[in-house]
Amino acid sequence: METMNALIMRDGSIGLESVEIPTPEKGQVLVKSLACGICGSDLHITHHASEVFDLYRRLGIMSDAQDDHTGIMLGHEFCAEVVRHGPQTPQTHPVGSRVTCVPILMTQHQAGIGVTPGVVGAYSEYFIVDEALLLAVPDGLPNEAAALTEPLAVGLHAVNRSAIQPGDVALVAGCGPIGLAVIAALTRRGIETIVASDPNGLKRELAGTLGASHLANPAQENEVALASGVASGQRVVIFECIGIHTLIDAFIKRAPVGARLVITGVHTTPSEIHYAYATVKELDLIFSYYYTAQEFAECLAVLGDGELAWQHLLTAKVGIDGVSGAFDELTRNKDHIKVMIEPWRLGALEPFEP
Amino acid sequence: METMNALIMRDGSIGLESVEIPTPEKGQVLVKSLACGICGSDLHITHHASEVFDLYRRLGIMSDAQDDHTGIMLGHEFCAEVVRHGPQTPQTHPVGSRVTCVPILMTQHQAGIGVTPGVVGAYSEYFIVDEALLLAVPDGLPNEAAALTEPLAVGLHAVNRSAIQPGDVALVAGCGPIGLAVIAALTRRGIETIVASDPNGLKRELAGTLGASHLANPAQENEVALASGVASGQRVVIFECIGIHTLIDAFIKRAPVGARLVITGVHTTPSEIHYAYATVKELDLIFSYYYTAQEFAECLAVLGDGELAWQHLLTAKVGIDGVSGAFDELTRNKDHIKVMIEPWRLGALEPFEP
Repeated sequence: METMNALIMRDGSIGLESVEIPTPEKGQVLVKSLACGICGSDLHITHHASEVFDLYRRLGIMSDAQDDHTGIMLGHEFCAEVVRHGPQTPQTHPVGSRVTCVPILMTQHQAGIGVTPGVVGAYSEYFIVDEALLLAVPDGLPNEAAALTEPLAVGLHAVNRSAIQPGDVALVAGCGPIGLAVIAALTRRGIETIVASDPNGLKRELAGTLGASHLANPAQENEVALASGVASGQRVVIFECIGIHTLIDAFIKRAPVGARLVITGVHTTPSEIHYAYATVKELDLIFSYYYTAQEFAECLAVLGDGELAWQHLLTAKVGIDGVSGAFDELTRNKDHIKVMIEPWRLGALEPFEP
Repeated sequence: METMNALIMRDGSIGLESVEIPTPEKGQVLVKSLACGICGSDLHITHHASEVFDLYRRLGIMSDAQDDHTGIMLGHEFCAEVVRHGPQTPQTHPVGSRVTCVPILMTQHQAGIGVTPGVVGAYSEYFIVDEALLLAVPDGLPNEAAALTEPLAVGLHAVNRSAIQPGDVALVAGCGPIGLAVIAALTRRGIETIVASDPNGLKRELAGTLGASHLANPAQENEVALASGVASGQRVVIFECIGIHTLIDAFIKRAPVGARLVITGVHTTPSEIHYAYATVKELDLIFSYYYTAQEFAECLAVLGDGELAWQHLLTAKVGIDGVSGAFDELTRNKDHIKVMIEPWRLGALEPFEP
C-alpha cells in the first residue's frame, strides 16, 4: 500500500498525516497536486469547525455519526498533473498533462473535493478528480496561476449573479482574493465606476491596479456614502467580500434606496438583521456561492490569454510542512492576498516572486 | 374655523378627535373620504408605535422632538370626493368627482398620507391630496372597490419586483389582502402554478377563487416542500405575505436551491437570520414595499374593467366611531380580509354585503 503526505483539518487545527494514496474508480483520475490555494473558507472551517459541521449536518454533507473530531482534507483551488486513470476511463488527458477543474466529484454523489469528509483534498500530495470535468491548463501558464481559476470563478459568478448593468456603480467591500476577483470581473464587464473599500492600504492599491476607479478606507470614511455620492441616483451594487457577518446588517442600514447587496461571504454564525431598512429602501439581497463549469472555464481562458495580471493576487508560497504555520500567519497578517501551497515539496512560507 | 371628525393613533390606541379641516395649498385639493381600508400596517403601528417611531426617526420621517405620544392620522387606501381646490390649482377634477391616488404629497416634501406625523390621513372626514396625482374613479365602480386599488398595487408591485417567469412556481404564504392581491396579479400575469398557504380555511378558499392552483394549510403540511415538489426543479418564488418576522428565517432554511423570497411584510423587530442557508442555496431576498404610480393606475383600471372579483376581498364596513372596536375585532378574528371605513358616517362593524 502506497502512502502520501496529506494535510488534515481536525479539532480546530491542521496537521500533516500519512494516508493511503487513493485509487481512481471508473471515470476518475488520480492527480498530483502541483499547486493549491489557501481559501478563506479553509481558515474559517478550521477555526469554527463545530459551527460549520453543524451546518454540514443540517445540509446532509455530514452524517450525524460524524463528530467534531472528524477530519476534513482541505484544498479545492488547484492545478494538478495526471498520474493514473481509473478503469474504463477515456484518458482524454494523458498522464503527465496539467489540468484543473471544478472541485466536485460527480462520480461520488457530487462530493466536494476539499470539503466533504472522507474525500481527499488538494492540500494532499495526490487526490482524485473526475476525468469528464477536467480542463487542460494552457501551456505557459504557471501552476500557481492556474490554481487561481477557482477564486476568479467565485468573483465572476458573483458579478453574474448581481446582474449589474452599465451605468450602475459597484462598491466592492473587502479586497481580499474574492473582492479582487470581483473587481477583475467587473472591469472585464466594462463597469466604469468601481469603489473598492478595504482598511488595508496594500489591498486598496491592488484594487486600483485591477481596475477600481475609487478607493476608500472604511476605517476613515463612509464607503457606502462615497459610493452613493458617486452614483448620484444610479443603482449601487454592493459586493460583500469581507466575511464578517455583522457587516451585512450595517450595509442594509447604510445602503441607498434600491441598492442590491451581493453576499459572497459564508456566514455560519446566527446574525441579527433589521429587515425594515431593507423593506423601506426596497433592497435586494443576492447570495452567491458557487460558479458554473462555464464560468470556471471562462476564468481559465482569461488567465491563459494573459488578460489578467494574476501575479498581483499571489503573495506567498509554502511547502506541505509549512501550511500549519501559514494558517497562523494568515490569521495574524492581513497583508496577504493568496497563499499557494505546493504539496509536492517541503518548505516554510516565503514571499512569492513572479 | 371648521372642524371635522378624525381618527388619531396615539399611545397605542386609536381614538376619535375633533380637528380643524385642513386648507389646500397651491396644487392641492381638499377631498372628502368616501371609503378607506384598514391596512395591516395600521394595526402594526398602533400596537408597536414605539418600535415604528424609532424606525421613523432613523429614516428621518419623524423628528427627534416628536415622542411616543405623537399622534398619527392613519388612512392611505382611499376613495375620495373632490370638495375644494387650492389656489392656482388647475381643477382637472371638478368638485364632486370621485378620485383616488398614491398616498403621497409631492407638494409637501413627499410626506406620506396616513403615515407622516402632522399630515391628515383618510380615516378622517376630510384630507388633502395633490391634484397632479389624482386619478378619476371609473363610473359604476363602488367607493369601497376603488379604495382597494392601493393594496392591489402593493401586490402587483411585489409580483413585478419578483421578476417571476412563465414556468416558475409561486408560493404565496399568507392569504390576507396582500397575499390575495399577489395571487390576483400572478393570475393576470399568466403564472399557472400558484401554491397558496394559510392556516385559515376561508382565506385558502378565497385564494382558490382568485386563481391559486394548490392550497396548503401550513399548520398541517410543509407548504414549502409542497411547492418544491410541484416545481420539480423549476424555480420557486416565495411571497412572504404574513408579516411575522421569524418566518423569514424559517423560509430561508426550508427554501429549495435557487429560490427567490419576496418579502412584503414590514418587519420592524430585530430578527435572527442564518445567512449560511441562503448562501449554500444561492437564494435571492427581494424586499418589496411601494408601488409606482403606473402600477397604481393599472390596478384601478383592472377594477374599472371588472376584471377582478374585488367583492371577495371585502369582509366588513364600519363607520368612523366604530373603528376602535374594529381594530380590536381585527386583532382577534382572523377571518377578516379587508375592512372598509366610511368616515362620513357613524356605525359599528357590520359584514359587507356586495
